[in-house]
Amino acid sequence: MSNKLTIGLVGFGCVGGGLYEVLNQSKLIDAHIKTIVVKDPAKVRSIPAENFSYDIASILYDDEINVVVELINDSDAAYNIVKRALIGGKHVVTANKKLIAEHLTELLEIANKYGASLLYEGAVAGSIPIIRNLEEYYNNDALSSLEGIVNGTTNYILTKSNEGVDYKTALKDAQDLGFAELDPTLDVDGFDSKFKLTILLKHTFGISVDPKELVNIGIRNIHPKDVQFALEKGYRIKLISKAEKIGSKVLGYVAPHFIDGQHFAYEVNNEFNAVIVEGAFSDKQLFIGKGAGSYPTASAVLSDISALKFDYKYEYRKSAEANETAFTNDFFVKVYAGSEYVELLNEIPFYTVDESYQSQNYSFQTGWIHFEEIIKIHTSKRKDLSIIVLPEGLISSEDLNKKIESELLTPIETD
Amino acid sequence: MSNKLTIGLVGFGCVGGGLYEVLNQSKLIDAHIKTIVVKDPAKVRSIPAENFSYDIASILYDDEINVVVELINDSDAAYNIVKRALIGGKHVVTANKKLIAEHLTELLEIANKYGASLLYEGAVAGSIPIIRNLEEYYNNDALSSLEGIVNGTTNYILTKSNEGVDYKTALKDAQDLGFAELDPTLDVDGFDSKFKLTILLKHTFGISVDPKELVNIGIRNIHPKDVQFALEKGYRIKLISKAEKIGSKVLGYVAPHFIDGQHFAYEVNNEFNAVIVEGAFSDKQLFIGKGAGSYPTASAVLSDISALKFDYKYEYRKSAEANETAFTNDFFVKVYAGSEYVELLNEIPFYTVDESYQSQNYSFQTGWIHFEEIIKIHTSKRKDLSIIVLPEGLISSEDLNKKIESELLTPIETD
Repeated sequence: MSNKLTIGLVGFGCVGGGLYEVLNQSKLIDAHIKTIVVKDPAKVRSIPAENFSYDIASILYDDEINVVVELINDSDAAYNIVKRALIGGKHVVTANKKLIAEHLTELLEIANKYGASLLYEGAVAGSIPIIRNLEEYYNNDALSSLEGIVNGTTNYILTKSNEGVDYKTALKDAQDLGFAELDPTLDVDGFDSKFKLTILLKHTFGISVDPKELVNIGIRNIHPKDVQFALEKGYRIKLISKAEKIGSKVLGYVAPHFIDGQHFAYEVNNEFNAVIVEGAFSDKQLFIGKGAGSYPTASAVLSDISALKFDYKYEYRKSAEANETAFTNDFFVKVYAGSEYVELLNEIPFYTVDESYQSQNYSFQTGWIHFEEIIKIHTSKRKDLSIIVLPEGLISSEDLNKKIESELLTPIETD
Repeated sequence: MSNKLTIGLVGFGCVGGGLYEVLNQSKLIDAHIKTIVVKDPAKVRSIPAENFSYDIASILYDDEINVVVELINDSDAAYNIVKRALIGGKHVVTANKKLIAEHLTELLEIANKYGASLLYEGAVAGSIPIIRNLEEYYNNDALSSLEGIVNGTTNYILTKSNEGVDYKTALKDAQDLGFAELDPTLDVDGFDSKFKLTILLKHTFGISVDPKELVNIGIRNIHPKDVQFALEKGYRIKLISKAEKIGSKVLGYVAPHFIDGQHFAYEVNNEFNAVIVEGAFSDKQLFIGKGAGSYPTASAVLSDISALKFDYKYEYRKSAEANETAFTNDFFVKVYAGSEYVELLNEIPFYTVDESYQSQNYSFQTGWIHFEEIIKIHTSKRKDLSIIVLPEGLISSEDLNKKIESELLTPIETD
C-alpha cells in the first residue's frame, strides 16, 4: 500500500473524539482524517458540525480513503461497515470487541481475500499492547496461561467495593468518570470481559471460540457479605478473564476471583487493566495500563494506524499449530458460593465442601466443583447467588482426585 | 534471507545453556544450532564435549550459518566477534548490554552496510519485551518518561535488605541462586543498569549517549540506617534506571530511590524487573517479568531469533526525530544523603535542606540539589556516603524556583 494513510473515521464518541485529538497532537505519524461519519446530526460535539458527514458511503466509496477506523458502539452496524470496507480493500482499525469476538473468522477471510489488514489492539485492555505482544513476541514460547483484568469499569467498581462503597454508588461514580460504557450490563455482567477473552484465546492459543460457549459470571450479585469475607481473609475481589492450557485442551471463562496479596493483580486498582501471560520459558509476564477512558484506547488505535504505514497485519501463527488443542469445560474450580438463601447453596453439587457458614441473613459454602455444574447454575440470570473463584483456582479432574487422596479430604464436610 | 535459520552459538554459560535447552524444547521455531563455540575446553558442561568447538572461525567462516548468537561475558571479545559476524553478513542476536551500550552506533553502521540485522532484546530486562515494544508499539506516542528496575541481582539484594537481611548475606544468596553475574561490581555499583539505560535511551528518545556520560549510583553504600529510614517512612529502596524528557532535553541516570506504596514498582521484588513507560496518550504502562536467570533471558534471545525468520530489524524511528533533543544534567533532584560522618554531609551543596538528622553513629540530610553537584560527589568511588533519591524525584530549575516561591521554602533550614 501507499505509505500515505487517509482515514475515514466512523464514530466520534469517547474513543473517536480522543483519537481525533491524539492524531492532531501527535506529529509522529503521517496520517490524516479525511472524513468523519457520525449517526446523529443533532448531537452536540466538541468540533463544528461541518466536520461531519452522516452517510457512510462518503467513506466506503471514497477511493482516496485507504483506512477505515471504526469506533461506534453498535456492533451490528459496525459489522456491516467493516465488512464493506474490507471488501473495498480498505484496511480497518477497530476497537469493537463484540464485533471481533463474534465475527473474526468471517472478517479475516474477507480481509485476506481483498488484501486488507484488520487490526484491533484497542479492543482489548485499552492501552496495553497485549495483542501485538502475543502476536509478535510470544509466538515461539509455548504459553501455558493468560489471565487479565480487562474491564476498567468493573475494576473501578470492585476497587470501591473493597473500600466499602456500595455497588450502586460505585457504578454511578464509574459512569460519572466516563469509565462505564453506554450500557453497564455489558460491563458488570462480564460480557465485555468475555468478548475480550474470546479475542485473547485466539491470539494466545490460536483457538476460535464462539463467545456464547464461554461462561461469564459478572459482579452484579456480589453481596456486601462477600466483600466482608474478602476483607477478613485479606483477599480482594477482581473480575478475571482466564485462559489456560489444561493437558492438550484450553479452558476459558470470566468470573470474579478472590485474590491474595501474592497475586500479581492485587495492586491493580481503579480503571487499570492488567494482563498476566505465562510462558514455558519466559515465566510470568505482567502488563499493566489504563484500560478505560478516551486517550488510552485512542492511543492503541493510533498504534494500529501507525503500524499500517509498515503494512502490518496479524499473522495468527498460533492458529496453524492449534489443531490438537480444543476448548474444554472439563475441569474443577474451587469456588465460594454465597446467598441469602441457604437452601440454594445446598442445591449446588459441590464435589467437596471445605467451609460452610450459615447465619440468618447470609450463608456461604466453599469447595471444589466441576465447571459444568457452574454453567448449569446460570449465575448471570439470577440475582440471589454470588459465585467467586477462590485463590486455589482450577485443576484437572485427575489432579483433583490425586490431591484429594493425598490430603485425605472428606467430600462434604461441614463445620 | 532464507527462512532457514542456522545458528552459530558463542558461549554456553547461564544464558547460552538455557537457550540450547529452550530451542530444543520449543517446537514452534524452525531453527537449529549448528556450531557452539566456547573458550575453555577444560570446563565441565551439561552436554558432551563433542558438541563444542573452540575456534570462532568455525562459525564466522561457515557460509551455512546465517545467525550468530553471542552470549559470552567478555564484552571486548564479543565486540570483535559481533563485528566480524556482521561484516560477514550474518545476523547477530546478543544479550550483551555492555557491548551494545558502548558500540551500538558503530555496529549498526556495519550491520546496515552488510545487510545484517542486530537484535538484543535479551540485553535489557530479561524476559520483558521492552525494546520490541518501544520500537514497534510506542513509535507514535510521544513518550515522556521511562523508569525501570532492570537489574535482578540488586533488586533481589534490596528486597532482602528491606526484609532486614544484611548486604553481604543478601549478595551471597543472590550468587547462590544464580542471579548475580560473574562480577557483582557491575550489578551492585549500577553499571549493568547503566548499560541497559543507555540502550533504553536510544529506543525511548532516539538519543545516543556514551555510557560514560551517565551517572550510576549503586547500592553498595546503602547503610542499615538508610533501610531503617525507609521502613519508618513506609518506603522501599529500589535501584532505578531513569530517563525523562525535561523540556526539549532528555535526562538519564541510575540511582537508588526511596519509593512509596503509590509507586508502580513498590511490589516488584526479588529477581523481578519492571519497566514503566509513560506516554502522552497511553499514560503509564507497566511491564513486569523475571529479569535474571537462564530461561527468562534465553526466551528473549529466542524471540529475537524467531523474529529473524520474518526478516525483522529495529528501525530506530525515534532517532530520526531526535535532533532537537539532547542529553542534559541540568535539573534538580530531591535526595537523601546519609553518612557516618556528619562533616561529609555538611560539605554537600544542597540547594534546600528539608530534614537534617544527626546522631553519634549516623547522620542524614534531605533536600533539593542540582544534579551536577551529585556528579561531583563521585559516589561510586567512595564508601562513606549513600545517596538515595526521594519520592519527589526530579524537577527542572525553573520549576524548582516556582515551587520554592509558592511553598515559601527556606533554603537551608535545620530541625
